Amino acid sequence: RENVCIFGTGDFGRSLGLKMLQCGYSVVFGSRNPRTSRLLPNGAEVLSYSEAAQKSDIILIAIHREHYEFLTELIEVLKGKILVDVSNNLKINQYPESNAEYLAQLVPGAHVVKAFNTISAWALQSGALDASRQVFICGNDSKAKQRVVDIVRTLGLTPLDRGSLSAATEIENYPLQLFPMWRFPFYLSAALCLFFFIYCVIREVIYPYVQEKEDSTFRMAISIPNRVFPITALTLLALVYLPGVIAAILQLYRGTKYQRFPDWLDHWMLCRKQLGLVALGFAFLHAIYTLVIPIRYYVRWRIRNTTITQVITKKDNPFITSMAWLSDSYVSLGILGFFLFVLLGITSLPSVSNMMNWREFRFVQSKLGYLTLILCTAHTLVYGGRKFLSSSILRWYLPSAYVLALIIPSTVLVIKFILIMPCINKTLMRIRQGWE
Amino acid sequence: RENVCIFGTGDFGRSLGLKMLQCGYSVVFGSRNPRTSRLLPNGAEVLSYSEAAQKSDIILIAIHREHYEFLTELIEVLKGKILVDVSNNLKINQYPESNAEYLAQLVPGAHVVKAFNTISAWALQSGALDASRQVFICGNDSKAKQRVVDIVRTLGLTPLDRGSLSAATEIENYPLQLFPMWRFPFYLSAALCLFFFIYCVIREVIYPYVQEKEDSTFRMAISIPNRVFPITALTLLALVYLPGVIAAILQLYRGTKYQRFPDWLDHWMLCRKQLGLVALGFAFLHAIYTLVIPIRYYVRWRIRNTTITQVITKKDNPFITSMAWLSDSYVSLGILGFFLFVLLGITSLPSVSNMMNWREFRFVQSKLGYLTLILCTAHTLVYGGRKFLSSSILRWYLPSAYVLALIIPSTVLVIKFILIMPCINKTLMRIRQGWE
Amino acid sequence: RENVCIFGTGDFGRSLGLKMLQCGYSVVFGSRNPRTSRLLPNGAEVLSYSEAAQKSDIILIAIHREHYEFLTELIEVLKGKILVDVSNNLKINQYPESNAEYLAQLVPGAHVVKAFNTISAWALQSGALDASRQVFICGNDSKAKQRVVDIVRTLGLTPLDRGSLSAATEIENYPLQLFPMWRFPFYLSAALCLFFFIYCVIREVIYPYVQEKEDSTFRMAISIPNRVFPITALTLLALVYLPGVIAAILQLYRGTKYQRFPDWLDHWMLCRKQLGLVALGFAFLHAIYTLVIPIRYYVRWRIRNTTITQVITKKDNPFITSMAWLSDSYVSLGILGFFLFVLLGITSLPSVSNMMNWREFRFVQSKLGYLTLILCTAHTLVYGGRKFLSSSILRWYLPSAYVLALIIPSTVLVIKFILIMPCINKTLMRIRQGWE
Ligand SMILES: Cc1cc2nc3c(=O)[nH]c(=O)nc-3n(C[C@H](O)[C@H](O)[C@H](O)COP(=O)(O)OP(=O)(O)OC[C@H]3O[C@@H](n4cnc5c(N)ncnc54)[C@H](O)[C@@H]3O)c2cc1C
Ligand SMILES: Cc1cc2nc3c(=O)[nH]c(=O)nc-3n(C[C@H](O)[C@H](O)[C@H](O)COP(=O)(O)OP(=O)(O)OC[C@H]3O[C@@H](n4cnc5c(N)ncnc54)[C@H](O)[C@@H]3O)c2cc1C
Ligand SMILES: Cc1cc2nc3c(=O)[nH]c(=O)nc-3n(C[C@H](O)[C@H](O)[C@H](O)COP(=O)(O)OP(=O)(O)OC[C@H]3O[C@@H](n4cnc5c(N)ncnc54)[C@H](O)[C@@H]3O)c2cc1C
Ligand SMILES: NC(=O)c1ccc[n+]([C@@H]2O[C@H](COP(=O)([O-])OP(=O)(O)OC[C@H]3O[C@@H](n4cnc5c(N)ncnc54)[C@H](OP(=O)(O)O)[C@@H]3O)[C@@H](O)[C@H]2O)c1
Ligand SMILES: NC(=O)c1ccc[n+]([C@@H]2O[C@H](COP(=O)([O-])OP(=O)(O)OC[C@H]3O[C@@H](n4cnc5c(N)ncnc54)[C@H](OP(=O)(O)O)[C@@H]3O)[C@@H](O)[C@H]2O)c1
Ligand SMILES: NC(=O)c1ccc[n+]([C@@H]2O[C@H](COP(=O)([O-])OP(=O)(O)OC[C@H]3O[C@@H](n4cnc5c(N)ncnc54)[C@H](OP(=O)(O)O)[C@@H]3O)[C@@H](O)[C@H]2O)c1
Ligand SMILES: CCCCCCCCCCCCCCCC(=O)OC[C@H](COP(=O)(O)O)OC(=O)CCCCCCCCCCCCCCC
Ligand SMILES: CCCCCCCCCCCCCCCC(=O)OC[C@H](COP(=O)(O)O)OC(=O)CCCCCCCCCCCCCCC
Ligand SMILES: CCCCCCCCCCCCCCCC(=O)OC[C@H](COP(=O)(O)O)OC(=O)CCCCCCCCCCCCCCC
Ligand code: HEM
Ligand code: HEM
Ligand code: HEM
Repeated sequence: RENVCIFGTGDFGRSLGLKMLQCGYSVVFGSRNPRTSRLLPNGAEVLSYSEAAQKSDIILIAIHREHYEFLTELIEVLKGKILVDVSNNLKINQYPESNAEYLAQLVPGAHVVKAFNTISAWALQSGALDASRQVFICGNDSKAKQRVVDIVRTLGLTPLDRGSLSAATEIENYPLQLFPMWRFPFYLSAALCLFFFIYCVIREVIYPYVQEKEDSTFRMAISIPNRVFPITALTLLALVYLPGVIAAILQLYRGTKYQRFPDWLDHWMLCRKQLGLVALGFAFLHAIYTLVIPIRYYVRWRIRNTTITQVITKKDNPFITSMAWLSDSYVSLGILGFFLFVLLGITSLPSVSNMMNWREFRFVQSKLGYLTLILCTAHTLVYGGRKFLSSSILRWYLPSAYVLALIIPSTVLVIKFILIMPCINKTLMRIRQGWE
Repeated sequence: RENVCIFGTGDFGRSLGLKMLQCGYSVVFGSRNPRTSRLLPNGAEVLSYSEAAQKSDIILIAIHREHYEFLTELIEVLKGKILVDVSNNLKINQYPESNAEYLAQLVPGAHVVKAFNTISAWALQSGALDASRQVFICGNDSKAKQRVVDIVRTLGLTPLDRGSLSAATEIENYPLQLFPMWRFPFYLSAALCLFFFIYCVIREVIYPYVQEKEDSTFRMAISIPNRVFPITALTLLALVYLPGVIAAILQLYRGTKYQRFPDWLDHWMLCRKQLGLVALGFAFLHAIYTLVIPIRYYVRWRIRNTTITQVITKKDNPFITSMAWLSDSYVSLGILGFFLFVLLGITSLPSVSNMMNWREFRFVQSKLGYLTLILCTAHTLVYGGRKFLSSSILRWYLPSAYVLALIIPSTVLVIKFILIMPCINKTLMRIRQGWE
Repeated sequence: RENVCIFGTGDFGRSLGLKMLQCGYSVVFGSRNPRTSRLLPNGAEVLSYSEAAQKSDIILIAIHREHYEFLTELIEVLKGKILVDVSNNLKINQYPESNAEYLAQLVPGAHVVKAFNTISAWALQSGALDASRQVFICGNDSKAKQRVVDIVRTLGLTPLDRGSLSAATEIENYPLQLFPMWRFPFYLSAALCLFFFIYCVIREVIYPYVQEKEDSTFRMAISIPNRVFPITALTLLALVYLPGVIAAILQLYRGTKYQRFPDWLDHWMLCRKQLGLVALGFAFLHAIYTLVIPIRYYVRWRIRNTTITQVITKKDNPFITSMAWLSDSYVSLGILGFFLFVLLGITSLPSVSNMMNWREFRFVQSKLGYLTLILCTAHTLVYGGRKFLSSSILRWYLPSAYVLALIIPSTVLVIKFILIMPCINKTLMRIRQGWE
C-alpha cells in the first residue's frame, strides 16, 4: 500500500482522503490541530504538518492559496517531494501568477504538480462524476507528473497532461468559467429576439387594435414567436458566414494573410460555432411551432369559418396550381434547409468532428453550410414571394418582419457569389497559400 | 519482427494470431496437440506449450480459466515472462478472485497483465470493430503493461490503462454487463406505462362501452399512448429531481453531509441520468404523436362532422379569445419544455459533457433541469386548466389521468421552492461546505 | 527554452514556427536563402540548412517530398537527430513508399517521426482548430516519438500514437480522404431516389396528364418526395441487414467461418453503418414531410372541398372503426419504428458507442435493428393494406411504389426468420464458435 500525505483537513482534503483510502492508499493527514480534527475518514492518520510530510514523498496541498505561507517553514522537509496543488481561486486571473507557480516559488526544492482542481469535493464523495472525470495535470518534472497520473487513474479519473507548470493559470481558470464562448451569441440572439418581438407586436397586435379594435393579443403565444424565432435563426445563420466574407475582403485588400485581423473580427470568427448552434436551436423551435399550427384552436376555428362562409355564400373554390406550387415549394425548401442545418449540428458534436479530417470538416461546414444558408434564404424568399411587392403589407410604413430578415442573408450570399468568381477566387487562393 | 507466443489454438487464439501476423508480428502457438491443430493462420508456428513458451518473452493465454492448472508445470519456463490474460467468465463475479489474479497466483514468477478480454474473436477477424476498439489493461508491472500497450496500439486498438491487477475483476465483469444502470429506469417506466395504459383504457374504452355501447377501441392505437407517454415522461422527470430534494431534507435533518445516504437513495441518485433519458424518449414520442393528430382519420372525420353539423344547425361559432390564449399557451409551454429537455439530452452525450466543467454541467443539469420540470408541469396544468375542477371529468370516480400525473411534479416543485428560501438555503449551503 | 529547428520557410514552416514561438520554444529556420526569407515570425533565427541543423536535435522538415534529395548532403549533420516529416501528397498512394519512409531511407542515421501532416497551416495561424486537433504520430524510435508527443501537447494539440513508421502511409493518406466510406451509400441512395422519383412522376404526374389532362406537377414538391424518401429509407434499411443474412447462408453452406467472404460482401458489411445513417436521414425527411401535410395548401383545399361537397350532396359520413384502426395503427407503427431508428443513430455516435461493451452494442444494433426493420415494414404493409390487392392501383401496369419498396425488406425478414429457427440457428452458432 502506497503512502500518500494530505495537508489540510477541510472539505476537499477529507473527500480526497476518503476516496484514496477506498482505492487502497494509506493516507496521512497534516493539520494545524491534529488532535481536534473531526470528521476524518476512518483509517487515516492525523499528524502535524511537519510530521505528516515525512511519511510520504507525495503531498496533496488541500489548503487555500491564501494560507500557503506557512509552508516556507517546512522547506527542508519538503525538499525533493512531490507537492500537488489542488487549489482554485474565486475569480478568473485573481493573482498575477498561478497558485501552483506561487507554491513552486515558496518551496523551491519541491516538484510542484497541478492537479485535481477541476473535481468537486461532493463529486468525490457521492461518486457521481459526470462532466468532471477529467483531471488536468501540469508540472515541470515528468516523473512527478507520472506519479500523479498514476494516482488519478487509480481513483478512476481521467488524467489529461497539459504540459509544463506554465499551463497552471489556464487550468485554474477552467473551473471558474461559465460558457464564455456562448455569451456573445446568447446576448446577440436575445437582443434580436426582443427587437423582432416588439416589431411584430406593433405590427400584429397594436396596429389591428388601433385600427380595428381587434384583440389579437393571443398571437403573442405562438404566431409571433413563430415569426421571431425563424427570423432570428436566419439572421444568426447569416452572421455565421458574414465574418468569413469580411475576412476575405480584408485579405484581398491587404494582399497578404500574414497580418492579423482586427480583434472584433477575430473574436467573431471564433464564436461562429456557438452562433450556428444557437441558430439551430431557434430553427428547431420554428420547426415545431410550425408543425403544431394545425392543432391550434385559432387555426381550426378559422378553417371551419372559411368553409362555412364558403358554403353559405356558395362561392366557388377553384384550385390554383401556382398557389400549390408556391406553398409546397417554400415548405420543401425549409425542410431541406432544416435537414442540412441539423447535419451541421451533428457534425459539430466533438466526437463526430474528431473523426473527420480537415478536408471533410471544411466540406461539411463551409460547402454544406452555404447550401443551408441558400436553402433557408430561398425558403423565406418564396414564402414572402407572393406578397413581396404588394404595398398592403406596409403597416405604419413597417414592412413585414421577414423582409428585414432577408437583408443580411442576401448580402452575404451576393458578396460570396462575387468572391467565388474565378478571377477573384484565384487571387484569394494565392494569398491563402502564402503568396503576397 | 517481434516474436509473440499464444497459448491455445481455439477460436480466440486463432483470431488473435491472424491479426498479429497481419500487423507484422511473428507468432508461435502453444498447443496440447501441436501436430493436429488445424485452421491455424498461415505463417504461424505450432509447438508444444513448453517449447512455445521459450520462443518469446510475451505469452497470450487464450485458454479458459478452468484449464489454467497445467500452467503450474511450466512455472520454470514462464519465470520473468509477461503473461497476458485474455479470459472471460460466463457470469459476473463467478469466482472469488479474478482470472488474472488467479493466474498470477498460479505462476508467481511471471508478470501478469489483463487485456483483450473485451474484444470478440469475430470482431478481430472481420475488422468491424465499432464499440469494441477499447482494450482495458491492468497489471502490477508497468514495463510489462507498456509492452502490451504497444501491441494493442499496433493492432489498431485503443489501450486504456486501468491501473493495478486489482482492477481485473472489474475488467472481467465489463463485457458481461447488459445496461446495468438502465434496468431500474426501464422496469419503472414499463410499470408506469402499464398502469396508466390500463387506467386510460378503463376510462376511455371500457367506460364508454359500458355506458353507451360505444366502440372506441381504436383509441388504443394513438389517443391512449399519447396520454400514457407524456404522463410517464412527466412522472419520470419529476422522479429525476425527487431524490435531490429528499437528500437535501436528510442533510438538513442530520445537520451533516458526512453521513451516507440510505442505499436506495444512493442508487436512485446514480441512475438519474438514465431516468432522465428514458423520460426524454417518452417526451419525444409524445411530441410526434401530438404532431400527427391532424392527419388521423378520426380527427379529420370529427372536424368535418363538427363543421357540417354547424352548417346544418346554423349555430354561431364565435371566436373566444380566452380559449385561444389557453390553447396556444399550453402548447407553447410544452414546446419550450421539450426544447430544454432535448438540450439536457444533448449535454449528457459523453463527448459534450466532457467539454464542460463542473460549474457549467451543474448549471445545465440542475438549473435548466428544474426549468424544464417547471415548463412541463405548467404545460400539463394549463392543458387541464379549463376542466380541472369540473366534476364531469370523473368517470367511475376516476379523475383524468393527467391529474395523477401532476402529483409528483407539483410536490417536487413545492418542496424545492421551500428549500431555496434564503433561510433554509443558507443552512444547507453551510452543511454542503463541510460545516456541521 | 527548448531549441527547435524548422527546415523550409514556406507557408507551413512559418505557421508552425509562429505557433512554437508563442508556446515558448526558441525556433531556428533552415532555408536555401537565409538572407532573403521574408514574412518570418518575429524572434526566429534564419540560417542555412546545415547551420540550422546543428542548433537543435529535433528538426521539422516543412518541405515538399519532391525536394528532399538535398538532405542527403546533410547526412553527417543529421546523424542521431530527430527528423519530423510533416509532408502530405496530392493524391492517395502517390508514391510506392510513404514520404516518411523515403526520408528515413535518405537519411539512415536519423530517427524519423511522422507528425503534424493532418494540421493545416491556416488552422495553426487562426487558432480555430476544430476537427483537426488530432496529430497522428508514428515512428520506430520510441524516445524520438516521446519528444514529438511532448511538443504536440505543448502546442495544445492532441497526439495520437499510431505505432511504427510503417503506419506512415495511412497517416499520409488520411488528410486526402473525403468520406471514403460514405461514397457507396451516397451513390446507391442517389440512384434509388432517382429511380423512384421517375417511377412516381410517371404514375402520378404523367399518367393523370395523359389520361385526364390533369396538371398535377405541383406534386413534385412534396407528395412525390414524401413517397421517394421513405421508400429509399426502407430499402436502405433492408440493405443494412441483407449482407448479414447472406453471410450467414454462406457460412452455413461452407460449414466454416474461416474462409473469407467475397470482396463485395466484405465491403458491403463494412459500410452498413453509413448505409444505416443515410437511411435515417431519409426517414427523418419522411417524418417532417409527413408532419407538414396538414398545412399544405392542396390538402387544406381538398379537405374543404370534401366537406362542402358533403354538405351540398347531403351524403352521410359514417365513422368506420376499422378505418380508424388501420389509419391509426400504421401511423403508430411508423412512429415507433422511427423512434428506434433514432435510437440506433444515437448509439452510433462515437462517444456513445465507446461507452458500450460488445454485448450491449450487438443488442442495440442487431436486436433493436431488426425490430426497427420489422416495425417499418409493418408500417408500410398496413399503410398499403387497404388497397393492396385492388387492381385499380395498377397504372400502366405499374403497381404503387410502396409495393416495390416492400420486396427487399420482406425477403430479408423471411430469411432471417428461417435462420433463427432452432435447428438452423444451432448449427450456425457452432460454426461461429469456431467449430467446423
Ligand atoms: C449548426 C452549425 C454548427 C456549426 N459548428 C461549427 C463547428 O463545430 N466548428 C466551427 O468551427 N464552426 C462551426 N460552425 C460555423 C461555420 O459553419 C464554420 O465556421 C464554417 O467553416 C465557416 O465557413 P466559411 O467558409 O465562412 O469560413 P472559413 O473558411 O473559415 O473562412 C473564413 C475566412 O478565413 C480566411 N481563411 C480561411 N481559410 C484560410 C486559409 N487556408 N488561409 C488563409 N485564410 C483563410 C478567409 O479569409 C476566409 O474568408 C457551425 C455553424 C452552424 C450553422
Ligand atoms: C434529459 C436528461 C438528461 C440527464 N443527463 C444527466 C447526466 O448526463 N448526468 C447526470 O448526472 N444527470 C443527468 N440527468 C439528471 C439530472 O439532471 C441531474 O442529476 C441533476 O444534476 C440533478 O439536479 P439536482 O439539483 O436535483 O441534484 P444535485 O445537485 O445532485 O442535488 C442532489 C442532492 O445532493 C446533495 N448535494 C448536491 N451537491 C452537494 C454538495 N456540493 N455538497 C453536499 N451535498 C450536495 C444535496 O443534498 C442535493 O439536494 C439528466 C436528466 C435529464 C432529464
Ligand atoms: C441508424 C443505424 C445506425 C447504425 N450504426 C451502426 C454503427 O454505428 N456501427 C455498425 O457497425 N453498424 C451500424 N449499423 C448497421 C447495423 O445495425 C449493424 O451492422 C448490425 O450489427 C447488423 O446486424 P446483423 O445482425 O445483421 O449483423 P452481424 O451480427 O454482424 O451479422 C452479420 C453476419 O456476420 C457473421 N457473424 C456475426 N457474428 C459472428 C461471429 N461471432 N462469428 C462468426 N460470424 C459472425 C454472420 O454470418 C452474420 O450473419 C447501423 C444501422 C442503422 C440503421
Ligand atoms: N471544496 C471543493 O469542492 C474544492 C474543489 C477543488 C479544489 N478545492 C481546493 O482545495 C483547497 C481546500 O479547499 P476546502 O474546500 O477543503 O477548504 P476548507 O474546507 O476551508 O479547508 C481548508 C483547510 O486548510 C487548512 N489550513 C491550513 N492553514 C490554514 C489557515 N491559516 N487558515 C485556514 N485553514 C488553514 C485547514 O486544515 P487544518 O485545520 O487541518 O489545518 C482547513 O481545513 C482549496 O485550495 C480549494 O480551492 C476545493
Ligand atoms: N471467443 C471470444 O470471442 C473471446 C473473446 C474474449 C476473450 N476470450 C477468452 O479467450 C479464451 C479462449 O477462448 P476461445 O473462444 O478461444 O475458447 P476455445 O475455442 O474453447 O479454445 C480454448 C483453447 O484452450 C486450449 N486448452 C488448453 N488446455 C485445455 C484443456 N484442458 N481443455 C480444453 N482446452 C484447453 C485448447 O487449445 P489446444 O487444443 O491447442 O491446447 C483450446 O483450443 C477464453 O478464456 C475466453 O474467455 C474469448
Ligand atoms: N500548407 C499546409 O497547410 C500544410 C499542411 C500540412 C502539411 N504540409 C506540408 O508541409 C510541407 C511544406 O508545405 P508548404 O505549404 O509550407 O509549402 P511551400 O509554401 O511551398 O514551402 C516549401 C518550402 O520548402 C523549401 N524548399 C527546400 N528546397 C526546395 C526546393 N528545391 N524547391 C522549393 N522549395 C524548397 C522552401 O523554403 P526555403 O525557400 O526557405 O528553402 C519552401 O518555402 C509540405 O510537405 C506539405 O505537404 C503543409
Ligand atoms: C434537436 C435539438 C436541436 C436543437 C438543439 C440544438 C441547439 C443547440 C444546443 C447546443 C447546446 C450545447 C451546449 C454545449 C455546452 C458546451 O459548452 O459544449 C462545449 C462543446 C464543445 O466546445 P468546443 O468548441 O470548445 O469544442 O460544444 C459542443 O459540443 C456543442 C455540441 C452541440 C451539438 C448540437 C448537436 C445538435 C444535434 C442535434 C440533433 C438535433 C435533431 C433535431 C431534430 C428535430
Ligand atoms: C430524438 C431522440 C430523442 C429521443 C431519444 C432519446 C432517448 C434516450 C435514448 C438514449 C439511449 C442511449 C443508449 C445509451 C447506451 C449507453 O449505455 O450509453 C452509455 C452512455 C454513458 O454512460 P455513462 O453514464 O456511464 O457515462 O450513455 C449515454 O451516453 C447516453 C447518451 C444519450 C444521449 C441522448 C441524446 C439525445 C439527443 C437527442 C437529440 C434529440 C433530438 C430530438 C429532436 C426531436
Ligand atoms: C435529426 C437528424 C436525423 C437525421 C440526421 C441523421 C442523418 C445521418 C447523418 C449522419 C452524418 C454524419 C456525418 C458524419 C461524418 C463522419 O464521417 O463521421 C465519421 C463518424 C465515425 O466514423 P467511424 O465509422 O470511422 O467511427 O461517423 C459518425 O460518427 C456518424 C455519427 C452520426 C450520428 C448520427 C446521429 C443521429 C442522431 C440523431 C438525433 C436525431 C434526432 C432526430 C429527431 C427528430
Ligand atoms: C422543418 C422545416 C421548416 C418548415 C416546415 C418551415 C415552414 C415555414 C412556414 C409554414 C412558414 C410560414 C409561417 C407563417 O405562416 O407564419 C415559415 C416561415 C419562415 N421560415 Fe420556415 N420552415 C422550416 C425551416 C426553416 C428554417 C431552417 C429557417 C431558417 C433559419 C426558416 C426561416 C423562416 C423564416 C425567416 C420565415 C418567415 C417568418 C415570418 O415572417 O413569418 N424556416 N416557415
Ligand atoms: C413538442 C412539444 C409538446 C407539444 C406540442 C405538446 C402538446 C400537447 C398537447 C396538444 C396535449 C393534449 C393532448 C390531447 O389532447 O390528448 C398535451 C398533453 C400533455 N402533455 Fe404535452 N406537448 C409537448 C411536450 C410535452 C412535454 C415535454 C411534456 C412533459 C414531459 C408534456 C406533458 C404532457 C402531459 C402530461 C399531457 C397530458 C396528457 C393527457 O392526459 O392527455 N408535453 N401536450
Ligand atoms: C415519424 C414517424 C412516421 C410517420 C408519422 C409516418 C407516417 C406515414 C404516412 C402518413 C404515410 C402515408 C403518406 C402518404 O399518404 O403519402 C407513410 C408512408 C410510408 N412510410 Fe411512414 N411514417 C413514419 C416513419 C416511417 C419510417 C421510419 C419508415 C421506414 C423507413 C417509413 C416508411 C414509409 C413508407 C415506405 C411509406 C409508403 C410511401 C408511399 O408509397 O406513399 N415511415 N408514412
